[in-house]
Amino acid sequence: MKRHLISAADLSRDDAVLILDTAEELARLADRPIKKLPTLRGRTVVNLFFEDSTRTRISFEAAAKRLSADVINFSAKGSSVSKGESLKDTALTLEAMGADAVVIRHHSSGAPHRLATSGWINGSVVNAGDGTHEHPTQALLDAFTMRRRLASGASGVGQDLSGRRITIVGDVLHSRVARSNVHLLSTLGADVTLVAPPTLVPFGVESWPCDVSYDLDAVVGKSDAVMMLRVQRERMNAAFFPTEREYARRYGLNAERMARMPEHAIVMHPGPMNRGMEITAEVADSDRCTAVEQVANGVSIRMAVLYLLLGGNEPAVTAARTEENQ
Amino acid sequence: MKRHLISAADLSRDDAVLILDTAEELARLADRPIKKLPTLRGRTVVNLFFEDSTRTRISFEAAAKRLSADVINFSAKGSSVSKGESLKDTALTLEAMGADAVVIRHHSSGAPHRLATSGWINGSVVNAGDGTHEHPTQALLDAFTMRRRLASGASGVGQDLSGRRITIVGDVLHSRVARSNVHLLSTLGADVTLVAPPTLVPFGVESWPCDVSYDLDAVVGKSDAVMMLRVQRERMNAAFFPTEREYARRYGLNAERMARMPEHAIVMHPGPMNRGMEITAEVADSDRCTAVEQVANGVSIRMAVLYLLLGGNEPAVTAARTEENQ
Amino acid sequence: MKRHLISAADLSRDDAVLILDTAEELARLADRPIKKLPTLRGRTVVNLFFEDSTRTRISFEAAAKRLSADVINFSAKGSSVSKGESLKDTALTLEAMGADAVVIRHHSSGAPHRLATSGWINGSVVNAGDGTHEHPTQALLDAFTMRRRLASGASGVGQDLSGRRITIVGDVLHSRVARSNVHLLSTLGADVTLVAPPTLVPFGVESWPCDVSYDLDAVVGKSDAVMMLRVQRERMNAAFFPTEREYARRYGLNAERMARMPEHAIVMHPGPMNRGMEITAEVADSDRCTAVEQVANGVSIRMAVLYLLLGGNEPAVTAARTEENQ
Repeated sequence: MKRHLISAADLSRDDAVLILDTAEELARLADRPIKKLPTLRGRTVVNLFFEDSTRTRISFEAAAKRLSADVINFSAKGSSVSKGESLKDTALTLEAMGADAVVIRHHSSGAPHRLATSGWINGSVVNAGDGTHEHPTQALLDAFTMRRRLASGASGVGQDLSGRRITIVGDVLHSRVARSNVHLLSTLGADVTLVAPPTLVPFGVESWPCDVSYDLDAVVGKSDAVMMLRVQRERMNAAFFPTEREYARRYGLNAERMARMPEHAIVMHPGPMNRGMEITAEVADSDRCTAVEQVANGVSIRMAVLYLLLGGNEPAVTAARTEENQ
Repeated sequence: MKRHLISAADLSRDDAVLILDTAEELARLADRPIKKLPTLRGRTVVNLFFEDSTRTRISFEAAAKRLSADVINFSAKGSSVSKGESLKDTALTLEAMGADAVVIRHHSSGAPHRLATSGWINGSVVNAGDGTHEHPTQALLDAFTMRRRLASGASGVGQDLSGRRITIVGDVLHSRVARSNVHLLSTLGADVTLVAPPTLVPFGVESWPCDVSYDLDAVVGKSDAVMMLRVQRERMNAAFFPTEREYARRYGLNAERMARMPEHAIVMHPGPMNRGMEITAEVADSDRCTAVEQVANGVSIRMAVLYLLLGGNEPAVTAARTEENQ
Repeated sequence: MKRHLISAADLSRDDAVLILDTAEELARLADRPIKKLPTLRGRTVVNLFFEDSTRTRISFEAAAKRLSADVINFSAKGSSVSKGESLKDTALTLEAMGADAVVIRHHSSGAPHRLATSGWINGSVVNAGDGTHEHPTQALLDAFTMRRRLASGASGVGQDLSGRRITIVGDVLHSRVARSNVHLLSTLGADVTLVAPPTLVPFGVESWPCDVSYDLDAVVGKSDAVMMLRVQRERMNAAFFPTEREYARRYGLNAERMARMPEHAIVMHPGPMNRGMEITAEVADSDRCTAVEQVANGVSIRMAVLYLLLGGNEPAVTAARTEENQ
């Protein structure tokens, strides 16, 4: 593993499988009476959020606390950052305060990369979503969810997603979730198809390791997983967007479409869902929809990422147990 | 004990006395050099606040931390909740993240009940105030304060409030504190009288287990405790509200009125006090006013509630000590 | 040591040297794999911030957590405080909740003093900046940085700053940093010169234990440290302020001026820096600029202050180690 997690595109197949396997091991913690490991005791994880995202923030916070790290939340709103302090000054501050990891969410694509490569900080940088660029822990938790649900063996430990057919549907243009998923899924051997209105397909998509379709009905029947992207309602009135009704009709997932999916296939959504827009309530609430599992898996994945970045060389839980016994 | 604490009206006399006795035991912690117990180590308590209430939030936070739980604060302001995410999606998120208890404050009466009965979460739900409905931990801390101050034996352990005469004064119509207190005090055997301007008495009060009076002077002399409700200044200009001066004159507690209370009787206020409105500074600062004790007792009560809901079967401190010695 | 830290002016030379020496010892923690000491386990530190200051808040938060204290952040924005609750009621609440230390930041000069002398709370009060009055931990971390950089022996343990010549440059009128530094540096034996535009020198400065100059070039060559104050851009258009260009030209530190400083001399800045205003980027990024070290030293100083106020009688790390071995 490198020292930072900036982009799903940076991960090798072995890196990715190691993270998934570590998360699998850590997920078992949830069944123990005490869900906490002493692994990161004395380490400090800073959540540096330039954009509000309570869900992502508390997922990282819960992950870090279960590993016994100290967590400091730094919301850039109302801080000196909003008074014009540069990212550099903020970074130097966090470094000086001894942050072992900085989890950064930023409205500008590339900010986490800049933070990681600047030399401003020695700690690990984890990208928690930057502009329309990447959201690698989301892609990892999605892959983890697929492997668990679609695996042939027990939880699929050691496996990748070779030969799985994944369809990602919606506003790909603005979606860092789509971007990170395409890279990671392709690394893990899956065949990815993007389905989007023509105006919402990113420029240069032909160089991405995936297919593109404008017809959801044509691909839904041969998908192992259909991942619905969240519609950002604030974009709905833009010229490049279909009307709501048109969108739901052509790109929404309803019970009828779901019925045409293979029996084992799952419906995924990064949440929160717009019921009635990209997904009907019936589909959202069905057993095939993994939205809630994805959230739970997010904590395990983030534990694994923090564990591996902050220096775990042995399997996470074993190392922790040894430490407990000392 | 049930798994949730939604309403003071749900508590049996035995439930309520158990909570008070547990709080009594936990209150002694405050005298130890290390005020922390390992009882809830590894458990996660989420403060889910849809309404600002720093005092209540930090009281629960302090309580949970003294029991060694991890605390995650989730302010619904600025989160995806404010972008239209449903209570359901928020609940599923918290469940997926492994919340063992969700402390919820909500502007809508009934939201905590809905959360607890929905099946969305497996953890315990604690109502920290919902609309004009209930605020059960406030009622418990009030009862705890009365028992300590008015008890015949040492701290009143095992006792209820049989035969005590409690007067609650002010804007009962909008007060969840009044509502929760009437239910709990009646369960504990006290005789409760509400005193309020006619326009601020709730519809249907005749079915509540209490008396109603419009004349504070008529009841003050025979009260063991007089509880002053906080005036919400933003309501003062409404048609149903007396003028400020009229309110203070007829329903405020001043030194002259306090002098007519029995010698042992106490003055209570949930805080923060509007000195000069419902209570004069002289009364607020007198030894008979328990406002500050109530805040301290609030931490003990919330520790007791979290302890009992999250699975304590033995007396709290004893269980903790045993765990410490292992 | 007294029980509170309100003003740098209250510290004797011995107090100040004890804090610096304790911080020196605690700073070594940063090199250990586990940077945490159990010293304040079970103690509660409340960050009571009436003014936004993310940097100062997280510095105290990091310091308290490294000593294993529980930290509760209380931002007065959006709390009942903003609805007219008095400082007294807030204080009584924190006291009742068992705060062992209250770190207070307030827009009014004197608020921390009032909190400490009121009798409202038993815990220790630490001034984290009040109006234009004082910011004592900033002065302590500045002195700590100077002693480390300018000391003759190893880190200068036990020493003060006798004979060192310190120049403080900028808007002294509105600067609590300048005020606290003048007092502390003078107590530690340093010779302080203030350099400021005539309209930004405070009334009564002739009674301060320092010299005043209007000419930066005249003093820069004989300074062991030059401390640049941050320009508050929101004040730049006021009548008493020079134009930006004029300010930078006469009171800014650029490479040319820095070159005239003695070889061993350092450039200090409390951060965040306005590059191009009071300091050029070249100076800000040079090895002689200690801005980043100052931030790191801030955590050590705040650990030392919390440690000493909350009852440490033995050297901090030794006491902690003993506790660990029990």
